This record gives sequence, structure tokens and C-alpha cells, in this order.
Amino acid sequence: MSYAALIIHIKKTTALDQVSGLLGWDQETQMPVKGGVQRAEHMGAMESVLHARRTDKRIPDWISAIDQSSLNAVEKRNVAEAQKSYDNATKIPADLAEALARLSAQSQDIWANARKAGNFKDFAPTLTKMIDLKRQEASARQTSNASLYDALMDDYEPGMASGEMTDLLAKLRPGLTDLRARIADSGCAEVKLSGDFNEAAQMEFARTLPEMFNYDWDAGRMDLAVHPFCSGSGGDSRITTRVSEQNPFDNIYSVIHEVGHAVYEQNILHADTMAPAHKYASMGVHESQSRMFENQIGRSREFCEFLFPKMQAAFGDIGVESGKDFYKAVNNVQSGYIRTEADEVHYNLHIMMRFDLERALISGDLSVIDLESAWNDRFKADFGVEVDSPANGVLQDVHWSVGLFGYFPTYSLGNIYAAELFAKMQDTIPDLNGKIAAGTLDEPINWLHENIHQYGRVLPPAELIENATGHATSEMALLKYLNKKFGDLYGV
Amino acid sequence: MSYAALIIHIKKTTALDQVSGLLGWDQETQMPVKGGVQRAEHMGAMESVLHARRTDKRIPDWISAIDQSSLNAVEKRNVAEAQKSYDNATKIPADLAEALARLSAQSQDIWANARKAGNFKDFAPTLTKMIDLKRQEASARQTSNASLYDALMDDYEPGMASGEMTDLLAKLRPGLTDLRARIADSGCAEVKLSGDFNEAAQMEFARTLPEMFNYDWDAGRMDLAVHPFCSGSGGDSRITTRVSEQNPFDNIYSVIHEVGHAVYEQNILHADTMAPAHKYASMGVHESQSRMFENQIGRSREFCEFLFPKMQAAFGDIGVESGKDFYKAVNNVQSGYIRTEADEVHYNLHIMMRFDLERALISGDLSVIDLESAWNDRFKADFGVEVDSPANGVLQDVHWSVGLFGYFPTYSLGNIYAAELFAKMQDTIPDLNGKIAAGTLDEPINWLHENIHQYGRVLPPAELIENATGHATSEMALLKYLNKKFGDLYGV
Repeated sequence: MSYAALIIHIKKTTALDQVSGLLGWDQETQMPVKGGVQRAEHMGAMESVLHARRTDKRIPDWISAIDQSSLNAVEKRNVAEAQKSYDNATKIPADLAEALARLSAQSQDIWANARKAGNFKDFAPTLTKMIDLKRQEASARQTSNASLYDALMDDYEPGMASGEMTDLLAKLRPGLTDLRARIADSGCAEVKLSGDFNEAAQMEFARTLPEMFNYDWDAGRMDLAVHPFCSGSGGDSRITTRVSEQNPFDNIYSVIHEVGHAVYEQNILHADTMAPAHKYASMGVHESQSRMFENQIGRSREFCEFLFPKMQAAFGDIGVESGKDFYKAVNNVQSGYIRTEADEVHYNLHIMMRFDLERALISGDLSVIDLESAWNDRFKADFGVEVDSPANGVLQDVHWSVGLFGYFPTYSLGNIYAAELFAKMQDTIPDLNGKIAAGTLDEPINWLHENIHQYGRVLPPAELIENATGHATSEMALLKYLNKKFGDLYGV
Repeated sequence: MSYAALIIHIKKTTALDQVSGLLGWDQETQMPVKGGVQRAEHMGAMESVLHARRTDKRIPDWISAIDQSSLNAVEKRNVAEAQKSYDNATKIPADLAEALARLSAQSQDIWANARKAGNFKDFAPTLTKMIDLKRQEASARQTSNASLYDALMDDYEPGMASGEMTDLLAKLRPGLTDLRARIADSGCAEVKLSGDFNEAAQMEFARTLPEMFNYDWDAGRMDLAVHPFCSGSGGDSRITTRVSEQNPFDNIYSVIHEVGHAVYEQNILHADTMAPAHKYASMGVHESQSRMFENQIGRSREFCEFLFPKMQAAFGDIGVESGKDFYKAVNNVQSGYIRTEADEVHYNLHIMMRFDLERALISGDLSVIDLESAWNDRFKADFGVEVDSPANGVLQDVHWSVGLFGYFPTYSLGNIYAAELFAKMQDTIPDLNGKIAAGTLDEPINWLHENIHQYGRVLPPAELIENATGHATSEMALLKYLNKKFGDLYGV
């Protein structure tokens, strides 16, 4: 009885949370410009409804009345997630929640203006306030033996301690800086596409990609957005992309990346029931799916050979003459400033510096006035290049301005998980490379359904990945994959 | 204090109601087919949140604590609307509300299947149940001296008694049946378009129409839907249309009709504040705006002459040689079975028979087992044709299956209001016809902004129209308009 009442309550809250998600999707893809005034009211009204439901005093009563011994594993997971959600919502004092909401609403604009003006000082006071509030939030939610940063990271990667994440990334860093330096010294010429990549042709091509990865169009759709994202789950898992006529890869790999997220969401068992056990496991696991589709599969030699004639058919002369050169163009390594444009070698170096800097900000070891120089020093050390402007440096990401501390490391964890899972698939699926070269991805995708997707949140994320790979997760699979791939490409 | 608290509560409820509206828009225009399971949960969760807010016990307390003498007219209207919404929500017993929701959810499918099978008996038991529940609802909401039907109609046309509506429509009927018969006997040959009206060309043309009527694209958008509708208000007023390659008028006049609704919504003063006084006045007033755009302007001789060369430019040879013939094709009068395809002469005859039949059903004078023959007899009398199948007769409209009793007459009231307002505009705006012929509609549309749109719900609908026209509303303007227009066209 108590269990049923609890779950009915939680499912309805999830339904309303999905409605908020749809409002966000609509705002980014469909809403007319003058709709913003009303939309702020819509979002605010939904947020207050959700907050009231999440802090409903009946939740702890229901939970304490449940005889846990009568529950199966999924039911236990549902109760644990309900408890956690209640704790998180109630531990934060109302005035702190309000201050965070107010600051988040303002600070994104302040950050955007500072970035445009190229002046970190314009953003520094706001960031200082944000860090102060996030420290208060972390302190309110902190459990014994956990750092403030742990409390924040737990929102995105439940159950993983920041110490564990620190070890994993610390072991990755020297291998990456070494590989990066060797490639920079290789003297290889850049291979680049050239041709007519007009928007209409790009979108026609982009629309052929999702089904290659078994995306179910009856359970989703694709629209344009400034920053591509995936929205929804189960029977309604939508993707977005964007078009740059200068760089068709932006569109192609945005689609493949978001399809990785969406195919995961479409295949979580019972996702449509909206029970807490039937949602994605963690941001790291989510990112492992998008990254594997994008990199291990989408940027592989085999898939590039498969894609190359299709690119020629869609765009005519694309400025490269062979699948091998096309593969080189796809995997061009360059020490750029911008994380979101980074190649596979540089991407995790971007993440690690943000991870180290934000941990220091939250712990108090680094103050905001020293952040810009700390960023620039670290960038020079890891990328071998001086940052030329704040917009290309410390002001490039939106995350900190909206209070997302503890999110960045899940990107790298996703890459580590993707490499682990792909190595296992290589061992398990006969002639996987041949199948990728033929564009027949049923087997690898079904393997992911069976070993990852279907479980949703029934298992803790680390256990889910270890069950799939058969061993504890380490950075080694990713380093091995990158050294082999880029060692071959650059002859280093 | 009490007033402020009440309005904050009501505005937030309106915001959530708009969110429900957006879910509906998304469902009809964007949602993938497999999203239906989740969407039902979204809608149900929103409905229960809305119901709780509408029946919040603090509402009567706030209202009774307000010193009404301190309020201005708009504020008084806000309080009156709040009171009415509370009364409507609380008067219906919870088990009746639940039974209605459950039956509405099921009966649309039952109706659709009966229509497909062409068997009214398949739908009759469900309709009987629906009428029983609607009678209970009406009885719960009924005020003294009002009929059950009045109580239902009040949802759509607040403040108008069904007796008044009955008089108005009864006076319209003989003039219409007479005009219809004269046209049928005129022996005029039908003028029809022919040509290539492919979907892409139609949509390109359709997208040029809204701005002709001063639709603000920055405060709206246009999408495809099976049944065109308008959604939202103020800064986010969206329209939909549909395409038939056989009949380009379907798309063109759907767009112009929905633009009439949307231009109204875009120009209600303070619509974005979501206060109850700042929403549309009534369904009849709403329909007057869409019908005037569609008929008095859009199907006028002058606008047809303006549109004709644009049609030729868009589609090449369209099978008629002159603006005059194009005007005839636009205004072809034919005694069809289907309301939504009816011309201006037949449309109100369709409405009147539904109005008379549904009043008899609600009062108990007509039982469901006799409905089909009552429909067929009345159709023969008013249209001069035998109904050939239930799908073309009593089963053609969705309204009754979802409990919409009292809605139909607002369509005709809209036509009556449109004719009244347009006659006034003809008197007031110098050379209105010349302006329509030139496609410069700023003056008539500004006249509507000033006399109708801006007021929202501040005035009761009948008073709003009478203030604009300067006299009590009657059926005469509509009859005069139709007799002149179709008398000329058919030489009768």
C-alpha cells in the first residue's frame, strides 16, 4: 500500500519533470522569440509544482511504512531513489534554493556579456557568489566522509567519489599529454574537406544517419538547435543538431553523438512507466553511449570508409580522394582552445583541467581572482599553447555560470567507459570491424541494449559497466585505443 | 493583500494551463507516434495539478477578504473570473469529474470506430452515457432560471442565455434556407480550379499569407496538423494548417482562418501577464475574428482579385482565367454533407441543426435512439438532400464524443458577430474595399485591435460587440451580407 502510494506519487512527479523538459526542448527548437516572457512563467510555475511534490511530507511516511523485505531489487531501487530525491530536495534550505535559482537566472547573461567583452573581471563577482552558494548547497547535502565536491558530483555520477575520479583521470593525463606532444611533432599535414556543404544538402544527409544506428524515428524526431542536445526518453526521445556550411562534420558528428544518447533512452526497459529505476544510470554512462557512437564507431577507419562514398553522393567533390583521406580529415588532431571543438586526443585534457580547477574552487584552494591565470598556466602546460583571449579560455563554457559544478568529469568518464565497452565488444562480437565497415550495426547496438541500455538505473553505474566488461574500470582501454588509432594515423 | 495573493495564484494556474495547451499543440504537430503513452501521463498529471489549484480552498477566503470597492474595473473582472472558475471546479463532484474524464478518454475512439464502420448503433450507448453525465454536470452547475443547456453553453459563451441564441438562430434559418434553395435552382455551372498544387508549392504560398493579415511571426509559428487549430496567446500564438493537393483552398483558408484567431490572441492587451481579464472574450468573439478574416475579407471579390495573380505566380495555370472566375471558384456553393467543408451559405444551417438537436438531447426531449433519424429528417428539410451514410451524417463531428455540448452555436454566433463588425467597418473605414483590393489591411486590422482585440475579457462578449457596432446584435447584417454576395454571384 505504502509502496504503491509512493510510486504513484513519484511517477507523477517524473511526468511533470518530463513536461518541464519538453518546455525546454520547445524553447530551444520551436518557440518564437517573443514567447520568452510567458515561457519564464511556465518554467517557474512548473518548478514550484515540482518542488512541492519533491518535498511532500508524505514521502518519508510512505517510505518508513514500507516493509523492505517484501520488495524485489527493482522496487528497492525505486524506494532508494525516492529517498535520495526527497533528501536532496529537503536538505537545501528554502532561502538557499531561492538564491540559487535567482542567481542562475541572472548569471548566464552576465557570463555571456563578459565573454563577448573578453573580460573575466566582469564575471568574477558573479562566479564568486555562485561558488559560495554551491558550497552552501554542498555543505547542506554533504554526508560523512565526503567532500563538498563529492556532494555536487553525486547529482551527475551517483555513487562515485571524487577521489576515485581523480585517480582515474590523473592516470590518464600523462599518456594524453605524451600522445598530444608526439602528434604535434609529427609534422603531418592536415587533411581537410572542401566543397559545397549547403544547409539543405547537409540536412538531407543528416537525416540518413540516425537509422544507421537503429534510432527509432517513430519514437523521436530531429530539429535544429544552437547547441545540440537530446531530450526525453522511451517512446519520445528527440535529438537536435546544427549546421555549419564551413564544417559538415559539426552536423554529422552532432547527429551521431545525440543519436547515441537517444538510442540509450529509447531502449531503457519500461522507460515509459516513469519509475525511478527505469531512467538512465548516470551522466557518465549516458556519455559513454554518445561517445562510442561518435568516436569508436563513427570516427573509426571502417565507418569512415563506409561513409565516404555516401558523402560524395550527397555533396559531389568533397576535396578528398579516398576513404583513407576522409578518415584522416575526420580525425584531424589540433591543439585548439575550445573544448566542444576538440578532437579525441585533446578532449579529455580539456576536461581534466576544468575538473582540477573546479575542485579547487569548491574546496577553497583556488580563489576566483586567481582562476584566469590558473587556467592559462594549465592550458600552456597541457596543450603547449598560450590562451589568446578569455573567450577562448576561462570564459568559454556555460557550465559554471549556471552552477554546474561536478558535471565536467562525467564527460571523461563517458570516454573511459566507451573505450572499456568497445574493447569488450571487439572481444565478443565476431568481425566487429567488418560489420562496421558494412554499416550493419545491429550486433554492436544489440549488445549495448542487452548489457547497458535495458538496465536503466536498476544497477549502480560502476557495477553496470563492470558487469558488462567483466573487470574493474580503468583508464587503460582508452589510452590503448587512442595510442593505437592516432599512433597509426600520425605514424608516432 | 488578498487580491495580490489571489492573482498570483490564478496567474500561476493560467501558466500551467498554457503548459497543458502546449502539450496538446506538441501532440498534434511534433510528437512521435510512440510518444502517446507518456503524453497521456503528462496530460493526466497536469490535469490533476490544475484541478487541485482550481479548487484550492484559499480562493474563496482570498475573495471574501477583498474590499471590492477598492478595485478598478479590470481588477473586479479578475476577481469575478476567479470566482467563476472556482465555482465551476468545485460544483462538480469528484466522482462525476472522474467519470467524465474516463468516458471522454474512451469515447473518442468508440466514435471514430463507429464512424469508420458506418454504424451509429456502435456509438449510441456511449453517447447516451455521455449525455447522462453532461446532464449531471449541468445540473450541478445550473443557476436559478437557467436551463441545463445554458449551464453547458456558459463554458464557451459566458453570459449568453440559450434562449437568446435560439431566437437569433431561428431568425437566421428561413433566410438561409431560402437563399440556399434559390442558388440550387439557379442552374449556374460550378467554377473549379485545376492545376498542379503540390505540397511544397502550397506551403511556400501559405507562408506568405499570415503577414498579409499582420500576423507577427516573432510571436508565433506555423505547422501542419490533421485538423488545423490555433494555440497559445500573446507572444506565443501558433497556427496550424493542412494540405490537400486536390484542393488548395483547404490550406489557404485554413491559414487565413487560424490567422484570424491568432492575430486576436497576439493583440489582447497584457495577454502575457496571464491575468483572467486578459484572455479572449468568448468562443463566439474568437470565431468572429477568424471568420471575418476568412470570409468577409479573404473570400471577398476584392481580396480574390488581389490573390489571383499571386496564385498564378505560385502555381502557373490554375484553370481559371480571371480574378472574377477565381472569386467564383472560391465561393462555390454546394449542398455537401460535411460541416467543415461547407460554404458560407450552408455553414450556419449545419450549425443550427446541431444546436437544435443537442438542446433536445440535453433537455431530454430527444433520446439517442431517435437521433439518427432526427438528423436525417432535418438535413433533408434544410439541405434538400438525403444523408447517404452515418459518416456523412450524425457521426461526422467529434464534438459530442468528447462532451462538447453548447459549443456548436458559438460558430454561428461568430459568423453573426463577424457580419456585424464588418458592416460597421464598411461604414467607418473610407474605401475599405479598395484597401482590401490592394491587400493593405492595416486599417481594418487596426480597427479590430482598437475595438475588439485589446479588450480581452475586460468586457462581457455581447457588450464588447455592441460597443464596437453601436447597436444590439441581430442576424440581419449576416443575412444582408450573404444575400448581396451570393445574390450577385448566382444572379438570384
